[in-house]
Amino acid sequence: MREVAVVGVGMTNFGISEKTQIEMFSEAAMEAITESNIEPRDIQALFLGNVLGDFEEGQMNMAPMCAADIGIPNIPATRFEGACASATVALRDAYMWVASGFYDMVLAGGTEKAMVMGTPMATRTFAMGSDSRYESFAGITFPGAFGMAAHLYSKKYGIPLEKLKEQMAMVSVKNHKNGVLNPKAQFRKEITVEKVLSGIVIADPLQLLDCCPFSDGAAALVFASADKAKDLTKKPIYIAGTGQGSAGPLHNQKDFTIVKSRVISSQQAYKQAGIGPEDIDVCELHDCFTIAEILAIEAMGFFEYGKGSQASEDGETALDGKIPINPSGGLKAKGHPIGATGAAQAYEIVKQLREECGERQVKGAKIGMTDTLGGDLATVCNIIFRR
Amino acid sequence: MREVAVVGVGMTNFGISEKTQIEMFSEAAMEAITESNIEPRDIQALFLGNVLGDFEEGQMNMAPMCAADIGIPNIPATRFEGACASATVALRDAYMWVASGFYDMVLAGGTEKAMVMGTPMATRTFAMGSDSRYESFAGITFPGAFGMAAHLYSKKYGIPLEKLKEQMAMVSVKNHKNGVLNPKAQFRKEITVEKVLSGIVIADPLQLLDCCPFSDGAAALVFASADKAKDLTKKPIYIAGTGQGSAGPLHNQKDFTIVKSRVISSQQAYKQAGIGPEDIDVCELHDCFTIAEILAIEAMGFFEYGKGSQASEDGETALDGKIPINPSGGLKAKGHPIGATGAAQAYEIVKQLREECGERQVKGAKIGMTDTLGGDLATVCNIIFRR
Repeated sequence: MREVAVVGVGMTNFGISEKTQIEMFSEAAMEAITESNIEPRDIQALFLGNVLGDFEEGQMNMAPMCAADIGIPNIPATRFEGACASATVALRDAYMWVASGFYDMVLAGGTEKAMVMGTPMATRTFAMGSDSRYESFAGITFPGAFGMAAHLYSKKYGIPLEKLKEQMAMVSVKNHKNGVLNPKAQFRKEITVEKVLSGIVIADPLQLLDCCPFSDGAAALVFASADKAKDLTKKPIYIAGTGQGSAGPLHNQKDFTIVKSRVISSQQAYKQAGIGPEDIDVCELHDCFTIAEILAIEAMGFFEYGKGSQASEDGETALDGKIPINPSGGLKAKGHPIGATGAAQAYEIVKQLREECGERQVKGAKIGMTDTLGGDLATVCNIIFRR
Repeated sequence: MREVAVVGVGMTNFGISEKTQIEMFSEAAMEAITESNIEPRDIQALFLGNVLGDFEEGQMNMAPMCAADIGIPNIPATRFEGACASATVALRDAYMWVASGFYDMVLAGGTEKAMVMGTPMATRTFAMGSDSRYESFAGITFPGAFGMAAHLYSKKYGIPLEKLKEQMAMVSVKNHKNGVLNPKAQFRKEITVEKVLSGIVIADPLQLLDCCPFSDGAAALVFASADKAKDLTKKPIYIAGTGQGSAGPLHNQKDFTIVKSRVISSQQAYKQAGIGPEDIDVCELHDCFTIAEILAIEAMGFFEYGKGSQASEDGETALDGKIPINPSGGLKAKGHPIGATGAAQAYEIVKQLREECGERQVKGAKIGMTDTLGGDLATVCNIIFRR
């Protein structure tokens, strides 16, 4: 397999959009294409993440519609759905089609218009990512699942719940602080631990500001063979490794403080890249809830199991910490248009490795990683990028 | 890229099932795995076609649930959605991951439980495959789109509508005749041209028996590298070529009697296989409506444009014709569980090339092809198989 590079990236502002999902994707795609110094006709295939286009806008088979909207109606165009991990799964697939030598240049990304449903309806609809036979009909939602994870974490590691709540709040505070520095973020406002802890309870012990929002948005990347990339950009960012793991329904998972799908996925990615977690300079990961970020930094190997909440308290995941996590603001502050999130994470990492992130730049970042989780920990997909 | 072979196939009966989509897929997958002389743990990744699991059963992110159900919860498991072409898109992707050398053995297929919605609701829901901005909200459904195609065909080629209706009826009669010979088919009953022509009108000029049913069902295939395949089966069936094309929304398509997505897709597949349509011995194609089969045999190059309806009348697509089309009974008689259809087509072609089809066997078939259409002609995906 040959080397593959990202030659251009694009992303809409996250938040509420007046545009359709197809139009948002076009905005992001045209930015990526323009940045790549190519024309739409140079694109050979489209790989699109989207989760609920049918419920949100009555749009299935969205990929060929997106291709048509940017003026290339005849290319192969495929939609991928792996709940919140949809876009990363699409990106990983796009990578393979170029790495294999089948295509030289492809477009990949994701789009979602979750705000159109409103949060209560979106939460219910999105619970379809859980097992429909034994779980979702019983009332479990994602806040509920992660609330349980927080209780388990507290009990397993002997961290009093009140203490853990503070530590979780610090994750939210950190991501909001980063979000202020990201002009495309949905929330650009600093918050305090006190404010998080005085919020309404969503699913005990998670409070409102422990939870990421729903969002509208899209992001896109152009992948090219390394040979082509050199002609197109002075700053190609290479794919060093990818991984994808699953874990089945929640009731099959022995201990969901250790996200097995993520352990498997990240180890695949490290192995392919020939590196370890200690080599990662910057990471965008799936902080759908504050506890989710804590679980992620452990399963990815940045911190030992049971030490992630303390590391968060100690500032080790801040912009100037040992391993800067979610410099974009993460899902919490940047926003979470579910089917676009993985592509937005990749957008941020590419920008970081190009050193184009202004005040939120992680200095000297040479290797970055994305991590996207889908469903009740059922799917995790990771990509490692390098300069 | 290296050679890839199918080493095992499985398929449920099509029709109404008491099982969930996950359980149906497990049934098909375990048949394919058993036939491959492997264990589930030998499978490295799952590629799943599914269209409306969320509307039908409240199940998103179905792929990892399917993997868990067959005892391999941790493998990468991805859902593909390209309307009715979903499973073929998944199969084509699975092929690439093995051809690239990344995986040696993968499982691919599709599952759908369309009957749970009933035909009127399924028709409305499924119309989300059309463009949601300008088309589906205006009331267009798939029967409507193909009814328009039949009118266009009649006018463009100067074939009186009454004549065309008879020729279309002959497509239905032929596919029902084949379906009688397929123990897994939904409809196993011969019909007559008179019966088709005396049916209720669905979307003029299409009558009830011009239209395929909705169905429940699943199908699965195991793909392996050619090297591995030789150790597993005496009858490996190789992937000779694949193609995928798009056409965007209906209002972007100049002349939808010539299905451009299919022209592009089938030519890609022929080119990769190094053959032409004259080399295909047997074909399973997307007869969602009788007129759709006529359009398909033309765009795939089996007959000249405007000659497909006459060829159907002349028996050239019968089991003993010039190019046997839909020996399984096709979508019309075998059934159309939308997200599984492409995998069921591949199941039939593999069985044909192994000469395991009993009374519906196409004698001496060495090269076979599948053709699956998604949406308002927006997506077509083709696979060519050879002994």
